Amino acid sequence: MKELTPQMKLIKALAESSESKIILLIIDGLGGLPLSENGQTELEIAHTPNLDSLAKRGICGMLDPIQPGITPGSGPAHLALFGYDPLHFTVGRGVLEALGVEFPLEESDIVGRMNFATVDKGGRLTDRRAGRISSEKGRELCSMLGHINVKGVEVFVIPVSEYRAALVLRGSDLSDRLSDSDPQAIGVAPLEVKPLSPEARMTAQMVNDFISRARQVLSKQHPANMILCRGFGKYSPFPSMEEVYKLRSAAVVAYPMYRGVARLVGMEVMPTGKGIEKEFSTLRENFQSYDFWFLHIKHPDSAGEDGDFQRKVTLIENVDQLLPHLTELNPDVLVVTGDHSTPCTLKAHSWHTVPIVLTSRWVRPDRVERFNERECLYGGLGRFPATYLMPLALAHALRLKKYGA
Amino acid sequence: MKELTPQMKLIKALAESSESKIILLIIDGLGGLPLSENGQTELEIAHTPNLDSLAKRGICGMLDPIQPGITPGSGPAHLALFGYDPLHFTVGRGVLEALGVEFPLEESDIVGRMNFATVDKGGRLTDRRAGRISSEKGRELCSMLGHINVKGVEVFVIPVSEYRAALVLRGSDLSDRLSDSDPQAIGVAPLEVKPLSPEARMTAQMVNDFISRARQVLSKQHPANMILCRGFGKYSPFPSMEEVYKLRSAAVVAYPMYRGVARLVGMEVMPTGKGIEKEFSTLRENFQSYDFWFLHIKHPDSAGEDGDFQRKVTLIENVDQLLPHLTELNPDVLVVTGDHSTPCTLKAHSWHTVPIVLTSRWVRPDRVERFNERECLYGGLGRFPATYLMPLALAHALRLKKYGA
Repeated sequence: MKELTPQMKLIKALAESSESKIILLIIDGLGGLPLSENGQTELEIAHTPNLDSLAKRGICGMLDPIQPGITPGSGPAHLALFGYDPLHFTVGRGVLEALGVEFPLEESDIVGRMNFATVDKGGRLTDRRAGRISSEKGRELCSMLGHINVKGVEVFVIPVSEYRAALVLRGSDLSDRLSDSDPQAIGVAPLEVKPLSPEARMTAQMVNDFISRARQVLSKQHPANMILCRGFGKYSPFPSMEEVYKLRSAAVVAYPMYRGVARLVGMEVMPTGKGIEKEFSTLRENFQSYDFWFLHIKHPDSAGEDGDFQRKVTLIENVDQLLPHLTELNPDVLVVTGDHSTPCTLKAHSWHTVPIVLTSRWVRPDRVERFNERECLYGGLGRFPATYLMPLALAHALRLKKYGA
Repeated sequence: MKELTPQMKLIKALAESSESKIILLIIDGLGGLPLSENGQTELEIAHTPNLDSLAKRGICGMLDPIQPGITPGSGPAHLALFGYDPLHFTVGRGVLEALGVEFPLEESDIVGRMNFATVDKGGRLTDRRAGRISSEKGRELCSMLGHINVKGVEVFVIPVSEYRAALVLRGSDLSDRLSDSDPQAIGVAPLEVKPLSPEARMTAQMVNDFISRARQVLSKQHPANMILCRGFGKYSPFPSMEEVYKLRSAAVVAYPMYRGVARLVGMEVMPTGKGIEKEFSTLRENFQSYDFWFLHIKHPDSAGEDGDFQRKVTLIENVDQLLPHLTELNPDVLVVTGDHSTPCTLKAHSWHTVPIVLTSRWVRPDRVERFNERECLYGGLGRFPATYLMPLALAHALRLKKYGA
């Protein structure tokens, strides 16, 4: 079990049970950049009357996902939003993928993210995603690989989605100090997995054995005739949001990796359909059963990574139109923000700050009247690290005791 | 070798090589205060069309050199700008002076800043700068003092400029836990150097021996008939900017102390003439050979310390006029800020925040249209510790990988 940071110990000591309810709506990759030098960002161009209305009656600000200048991956960015300092609560991508598909990880399991890929006759990568094979095909291939025996260790190959899978090693004296086999480039051969410290030598050998056996097993499975591994991590459970915040928490999340993050912090992950409307409905139908709701909207991030400015604008507008479904529930605290920025001009996650709005009976309102990057700069919350969001949400839900007499 | 802080370890793990170029223009003592209660600061009065144009298209903010309320010396202020936490990366003024004149310091050398001074017949100080003797005279006197032998230790007396010098002790079991002999006042006698902890007793004795021998040697050299020592420190090399940031970095700096800071973090210090124009030319001529440029303009700080408001205004305007020489180079990131404030009304360094502007293809613009203290308050960077400047510059130069998956 990972230890609490001093910051979390403080919050844990002050957190009280309550009937109050908190909703955290995360619009993935929300922050953006203008298309041209004097232009407007995705959020500035989007018509968002409901978000603007929240900004008007709530308190706004700008979040630093990790710290100034640092671009976060999705895992660390979400952990920060949940109050788990991502520089302390480190976790491999494979762990999140495995938890996301409900694989029952055990403490000290070594987990890597695995891709099916295509290599040519010379062993050089031609497609790092194996032509995006179907999820069904992915399951079938994972099942084939599951029969591989590696001496001294139990191996699980867990299908995630399409060409994506997770590789789990269970045994004693295993280490996650392993380099990637994925070279993150095509035209070159996959890399040998190397131990990053001496105690990882045996584990590296086991993974390399598995990979070479997998290549034999897949030799006739073109385009999925190879596997790539990266992001190895050792699973260590995190203290739950119930333990730290006294919150019975639930997540509505369509994508496996985010379900993994939610499970890691002890949220109940609700079954839900794909599509934004279904996610909102799932929350509405179960609203009364939990104290804290994490509602995750993935698509604006994908539009940002594709560089599709207009699609990102439209997706943000879609979320805005559904917002009354949340406000009608009258949560004690409603927070809307993103996990990070994904500017369409950059086609990638970025380090830029993210606008945030918090509404509650107890906010001290500011002068912000529109929910976007330039307006939220002038919000009453100022610029602050994402790890302060949970204390702020709990405070506005009257769930934190006074510190000291 | 000094250890990296966790913050620097993070940046080091994320830094990548790139062709992108960063220029950091430091206007020493940039920040100011209004002359009268309802007046304007030096920077507000100065006509600075080029800085204002940067502010318009860039992102602005306010730097805390060390932390709120702390007035920095020039050494710590610059270390912070380079991302070296000055509370961790401590360094004596003498070390910086010695490095600034290219003296080959060795690890564990004890270095103190040394002044020639004038004492009267009763041994009381009448001038702490010995009538500002010439640099030539200073060199001559240092050479005389260099012949003094102190038992058990090798002593070097290094001329810096005019009445300023550095005293280096090289030997085993030396300590820098020493008080100053400089009382920072006239009309009193120089102080005995005292050990600030038991292990420094021997070193204190050696320094006191040296000082009393020096007084004999200088007895006929009025006005330079005495020396004052202060700011003892033990030299310990710092990890270089190349090692931490993967930046081949160069400095254009006219003053020895700042050359010392630049060398301490592994910058190549370019030979340059005195005068602002020459510094700009030196950078232009060598621009392509380095990734990171530190251009240091000293004079506004001196004007601030002299309390010469109009001169500081004019000097800032001079820098503004030369700015196109930098923008024409099209650096990927251009940052303009100061190391600290030196308000003319205070005639000294101060704790006030310092305006900063950063331009890059990847900035998210704010509404700031003028580069000064009151406008930059509303900039998109907000108020932040100077040690975050390097991560921000690296991020905007696309030189930092994503943190986590």
